[in-house]
Amino acid sequence: MDTTITSYIETNKKRFIDELFELLRIPSVSADPKYSKDVFRTAEVIKGKLVAAGAVKVEVCPTAGYPIVYGEKIIDAALPTVLVYGHYDVQPADPLELWDSGPFEPVIKNEKIYARGACDDKGQVYMHIKAFELMMQTKSLPCNVKFMIEGEEEVGSDNLGTFVKQNKEKLKADVILISDTGIIANDIPSITVGLRGLSYMEVEVQGPNRDLHSGLYGGAVANPINILCEMIAKMKDDKDHITIPGFYDDVEILTEAERSELAKAPFNLDEYKKALDLSDIHGETGYTTNERNSIRPTLDVNGIWGGYMGEGAKTVIASKAFAKISMRLVPHQNSDTITKLFKNYFESIAPKSVKVKVTPHHGGEPVVTPSNSTAYKAASMAMETTFGKKPIPVRSGGSIPIVAMFKSELGLDSVLMGFGLDSDAIHSPNEHYGVFNYLKGIETIPYFFKNYAALSK
Amino acid sequence: MDTTITSYIETNKKRFIDELFELLRIPSVSADPKYSKDVFRTAEVIKGKLVAAGAVKVEVCPTAGYPIVYGEKIIDAALPTVLVYGHYDVQPADPLELWDSGPFEPVIKNEKIYARGACDDKGQVYMHIKAFELMMQTKSLPCNVKFMIEGEEEVGSDNLGTFVKQNKEKLKADVILISDTGIIANDIPSITVGLRGLSYMEVEVQGPNRDLHSGLYGGAVANPINILCEMIAKMKDDKDHITIPGFYDDVEILTEAERSELAKAPFNLDEYKKALDLSDIHGETGYTTNERNSIRPTLDVNGIWGGYMGEGAKTVIASKAFAKISMRLVPHQNSDTITKLFKNYFESIAPKSVKVKVTPHHGGEPVVTPSNSTAYKAASMAMETTFGKKPIPVRSGGSIPIVAMFKSELGLDSVLMGFGLDSDAIHSPNEHYGVFNYLKGIETIPYFFKNYAALSK
Repeated sequence: MDTTITSYIETNKKRFIDELFELLRIPSVSADPKYSKDVFRTAEVIKGKLVAAGAVKVEVCPTAGYPIVYGEKIIDAALPTVLVYGHYDVQPADPLELWDSGPFEPVIKNEKIYARGACDDKGQVYMHIKAFELMMQTKSLPCNVKFMIEGEEEVGSDNLGTFVKQNKEKLKADVILISDTGIIANDIPSITVGLRGLSYMEVEVQGPNRDLHSGLYGGAVANPINILCEMIAKMKDDKDHITIPGFYDDVEILTEAERSELAKAPFNLDEYKKALDLSDIHGETGYTTNERNSIRPTLDVNGIWGGYMGEGAKTVIASKAFAKISMRLVPHQNSDTITKLFKNYFESIAPKSVKVKVTPHHGGEPVVTPSNSTAYKAASMAMETTFGKKPIPVRSGGSIPIVAMFKSELGLDSVLMGFGLDSDAIHSPNEHYGVFNYLKGIETIPYFFKNYAALSK
Repeated sequence: MDTTITSYIETNKKRFIDELFELLRIPSVSADPKYSKDVFRTAEVIKGKLVAAGAVKVEVCPTAGYPIVYGEKIIDAALPTVLVYGHYDVQPADPLELWDSGPFEPVIKNEKIYARGACDDKGQVYMHIKAFELMMQTKSLPCNVKFMIEGEEEVGSDNLGTFVKQNKEKLKADVILISDTGIIANDIPSITVGLRGLSYMEVEVQGPNRDLHSGLYGGAVANPINILCEMIAKMKDDKDHITIPGFYDDVEILTEAERSELAKAPFNLDEYKKALDLSDIHGETGYTTNERNSIRPTLDVNGIWGGYMGEGAKTVIASKAFAKISMRLVPHQNSDTITKLFKNYFESIAPKSVKVKVTPHHGGEPVVTPSNSTAYKAASMAMETTFGKKPIPVRSGGSIPIVAMFKSELGLDSVLMGFGLDSDAIHSPNEHYGVFNYLKGIETIPYFFKNYAALSK
């Protein structure tokens, strides 16, 4: 244990939290244009924080969408360089009525910081800025560091690829370090070594050209809501296999040995069900819960709407029905291919009595990161030091599409050393991030730098 | 032709329209509590209009919900009495963005009055008040008349039954006359002799106890939207038969002769498809379009919602999904029975991984009215006089649940002499009512009274 690190954190922890609160107060919802100004403002605030922490050449780099904040500290060109990636945009906060406190009015309750973005990803980004400040202030930065903090992760990082392509020299590094994932539990550290990809669509089903009275027309015209439901139902069979032709063609099949290895991660199904108040689990026949949400692809409706949604009863047949449908992809599946397969299938199962429209939103590729690299070892040792236990390598069900892009464009592997918990309710009402986890991140990151610099020698 | 009638209408038609506009400007949406004051205010305005037209004992009768406006004109207790029923409440106006002009800012375009309630039912109610005024002013009222105009038709007439039970003496009459239906076309008059019943439910499907990240949980927990879609899909087979056990048990089966008779109503499938911009029709195998929407029961989703409905992409698994589902019923089916069958079936097909809730909204019984009664003949002759063609008796797909209730409580048959058109977009954006139809109604009603009084002698 390095007492310099722990005492610096002890001395400054109140300020670390106050500064994070400043960031959390800005509603940087990238999905909703009405928060556009706030998203831009957040980039400026991040810039200021990087400068204050000691970074140089800090700039808010414009893109066709929201800007990317860049900053760096090169202490010696001969030393390795760590590129820290994160995002300052957040998910929409709705349904607002389910929040116990305002999503953009951070508060601490039960040692947890409650706010949209507390964990995903402002809290985790800010750990890096504060860990960097710590290394600067304690004169212990052992290698070079670059920061690339974007504002479009929650909407598909549409402009990051172009930025990376155009700034390969600037982004030159030896490894990418990302904290946008979690650990199994506060006493069971883990590092993510696999991520699922994503295909996300919006679909529209149109029946009649206007809303109709369900008495006068009911039974005689295609009801687009019924049809949409039937089409969605048709996308899975009774074993919860996805029925899109070709969908599983490229899915990585794990060996029994690999499945046994993954099954070693501690997991209690009863606790899982209890935490979510589920009377039964649900998913693809032949796979465990942990397999279903990591090594298997999925198809989930993320939103659906059509017709009358107000109070009381309205006897209407809607003209149109809509759904947002996404698929999580596993290694070897390709997002564009799956998007095409989905679109073809969805169009093919539509009865002639309706018109359908499929609009792809963003996609992302699945990825498996190496667990035998120098960087992985540096992260594993760092966590072992601060948690007192060697972290477990795990496959996560989530997607960070840019990991695959970094590999293809920059030739760099990423280390996914995140500090959140599954129970943090990211993307949900009452998102939160443990004060323990926030400070543990700030404590662990300097060890990663130290280990990485030492192991790279 | 009675020139007294036509010349009175010619002289007063501008005022008739202006007065209707007054009524249409009040947003008397009974389904939405935020319009509560407006609904009450509409009752007061109706009262004033009845008084002005010459009715006496006019009162706004309170109920547990919205009031019922009563008024009468008894000229001779020995003469027959016509009880006019109508409703002053309207459907919700949403989706608002699809209206070309404000739903409560009536305008005339192409000889049609555009506003919520223009046809259903303010326009048709007001025809009766103006026809009554005409008979009073021209001293031609040939029998007694009573008015009962309610404010809860669009939400199931919950309190009308109690009112009728408690006021049997006051409501004593020989026949009920209702204009809340339509004609086939302006040159093809028709009278409705059958109405479908209604069962209307709201359903809720709950998966996890909170919204979840679709990456971390996708595939491993029941997605309530997917499940709801699958359950809705299961309620019909591939022939569009409803699969609820027992659903068809009581359905009236028409003879081939009866079906042939119904098939005589003029109908052009190509025009029907063109008017609704349908590439194909859709419905139960083995029945024609006109049979599907009149003599066959239906199951339609009237609204569905859950998860993220905003712009862009949110990777969420919703905790809950909702739908409003209604069934139109045909003679011999019973609304309470069908509601129970639906509830049992819906609960039985829910997988153990979700919790479901079924909340019945209002229901109503199907009805067939006699087409050989004195009142029917009076209506038929009246239309023949004003349209120049004998009207066709038709079965309508819609529901006016109170017709069955009037029969059971008051022992009275109803005559459904309405003047709307299928294309009037009632319950939809841009509801309208032809100026022709409005004035034709005012013209026809006095003939009905005249014929009915004469035929009753």
